[in-house]
Amino acid sequence: MTNPPKAVIAIHGGAGTISRSSQGSAMQEAAYHQALNGILLAGQQLLSEGGSALDAVSLAVDLLEECPRFNAGYGAVFTHEATHELDAAIMDGATLRAGAVACVSRIRRPLRAARAVMERSEHVLLVGTGAEAFAEDCGLEMVDPTFFSTEVRRAQLAHALQADRMMMDHDGASLTFRTKDLMPAPLDESRKLGTVGAVALDVHGNLAAATSTGGMTNKRCGRVGDTPLIGAGTYADNRTAAISCTGTGEMFIRGVVAYDICARMAYGGQSLDVAAQEVVMKSLAAIGGRGGLIALDALGRSSCPFNTEGMYRGHARVGEVVHTAIFLED
Amino acid sequence: MTNPPKAVIAIHGGAGTISRSSQGSAMQEAAYHQALNGILLAGQQLLSEGGSALDAVSLAVDLLEECPRFNAGYGAVFTHEATHELDAAIMDGATLRAGAVACVSRIRRPLRAARAVMERSEHVLLVGTGAEAFAEDCGLEMVDPTFFSTEVRRAQLAHALQADRMMMDHDGASLTFRTKDLMPAPLDESRKLGTVGAVALDVHGNLAAATSTGGMTNKRCGRVGDTPLIGAGTYADNRTAAISCTGTGEMFIRGVVAYDICARMAYGGQSLDVAAQEVVMKSLAAIGGRGGLIALDALGRSSCPFNTEGMYRGHARVGEVVHTAIFLED
Repeated sequence: MTNPPKAVIAIHGGAGTISRSSQGSAMQEAAYHQALNGILLAGQQLLSEGGSALDAVSLAVDLLEECPRFNAGYGAVFTHEATHELDAAIMDGATLRAGAVACVSRIRRPLRAARAVMERSEHVLLVGTGAEAFAEDCGLEMVDPTFFSTEVRRAQLAHALQADRMMMDHDGASLTFRTKDLMPAPLDESRKLGTVGAVALDVHGNLAAATSTGGMTNKRCGRVGDTPLIGAGTYADNRTAAISCTGTGEMFIRGVVAYDICARMAYGGQSLDVAAQEVVMKSLAAIGGRGGLIALDALGRSSCPFNTEGMYRGHARVGEVVHTAIFLED
Repeated sequence: MTNPPKAVIAIHGGAGTISRSSQGSAMQEAAYHQALNGILLAGQQLLSEGGSALDAVSLAVDLLEECPRFNAGYGAVFTHEATHELDAAIMDGATLRAGAVACVSRIRRPLRAARAVMERSEHVLLVGTGAEAFAEDCGLEMVDPTFFSTEVRRAQLAHALQADRMMMDHDGASLTFRTKDLMPAPLDESRKLGTVGAVALDVHGNLAAATSTGGMTNKRCGRVGDTPLIGAGTYADNRTAAISCTGTGEMFIRGVVAYDICARMAYGGQSLDVAAQEVVMKSLAAIGGRGGLIALDALGRSSCPFNTEGMYRGHARVGEVVHTAIFLED
């Protein structure tokens, strides 16, 4: 692919395996495609008007956080203590500036707090109540922690506590017994790796990446995954690529997955796609890591490898038709 | 240098500029050399008896945490709120397993908690009260947060609050007016970057790295620097190197400094020393980062570049004389 540099945005809404139940799948699939499509159209519009990559990923993750289908912001999963702990990060490929928050439960839009850390503090990562105090000082919207709760996620926690095991997201199949109007999602929610993210290239040639998550249902309080860690779940550098990951966070941390792709390009001369494929299919798989990522290089070439059966994803180039996908063959 | 693989340990106790006052410097220098020497001897002894790199770095950082001269564990600096928030991380180069804690104030030995996260949880990073609850569950020694407080550090906070600026460590010069028995340290404490760390190679050919810190005097609560972030301040991989960093944490995060050295070796074919020098003197300097690091490769070759005037450091090879240093020419 040798496209000329053209503004483009790519997003993801988590990776996982195919749902065991096929009941209602077609309708649910369509609903996910529609949600992804709407968010990509908004990002595409912003980029087409000359907006920055930083603003495009901020907008897309804002919208993903507010959509309860995805495990970030409103609709985030519950911790073991029936609380929410949200993580988010953003990085500017032009300056290598970055900002992140972790373990916050009162900031309505965690990604906006991450951006405030980047733009309005000397720091990169703020966690817990310190991060919340900073966000409040910045005038960001604060909410009661119950704001993020949905009945669907509460039922998932009950199920996880019963199963006494860590769940990466929620068990949609079991929920069909509890919530009549809930049909199984296309990806098996009991094994879905829940995160949302966006990467973008703007007309000025700048790259940016952003990621946000509610973590894992029934997770231990204080657990921080790869999402808010610069280099692990999120990275952007105009010289190489912008990357946002989703998967078994601990393995992404150990492999420094996002930065590893940039390093392979910078020092090994690999193309974006070769680097991304090797990291997800080989390095990550070698330590038992499951999940995927979305990536864009400085020429707008994209790659979105995943070693699960599916990943909610899509991309939109300015002036072209929006593309959304869930399974490998999509 | 083409030494045959031989067990070796290297440690650091922070980087900074030369003290503006020369009063008492010789005695203070000798005291720092003595502290570093004693810790290296303990690590060397452990390695000479066939102990693991993981145990060697654990022991060395344990001792550095307990020594009030260094900003980690007992003698850690104060936050803006006159509390302590400690961070630590450890990584095993043989398995790429890693563990870390951040923003903890009740765990006597934060590095031991990081190792427990690695060995006794499914996670890599636990923060705040969740990390403390985990450490307590593991039977680690818990203390009242005031345990870490020393009069010297309290005076530093008062000075920092008065100066109304973030200080990387403490102002030894000003303290001579407050504490009669305190002589200025060899490195200017007002601009010292306070962290401790260790890297080791054992007789089995395994590498390990560990880092621990109290962060910055007068820091915002909830701020997390590079120390507990795998890939930023700490990394170990038997295929390349073990690295522990100290410096302006935010820049080390943005540059993914520790992992960048491994990546340059793995993908660019650089030697440890070339990689370490380029990262500290070029990449890090390009974004305004100040500090240094200690690194060992799988053959036991060492590198300890810093772009400040000095760095408390030393190394000990089994069967050889211990070497300690503070300034560039040491």
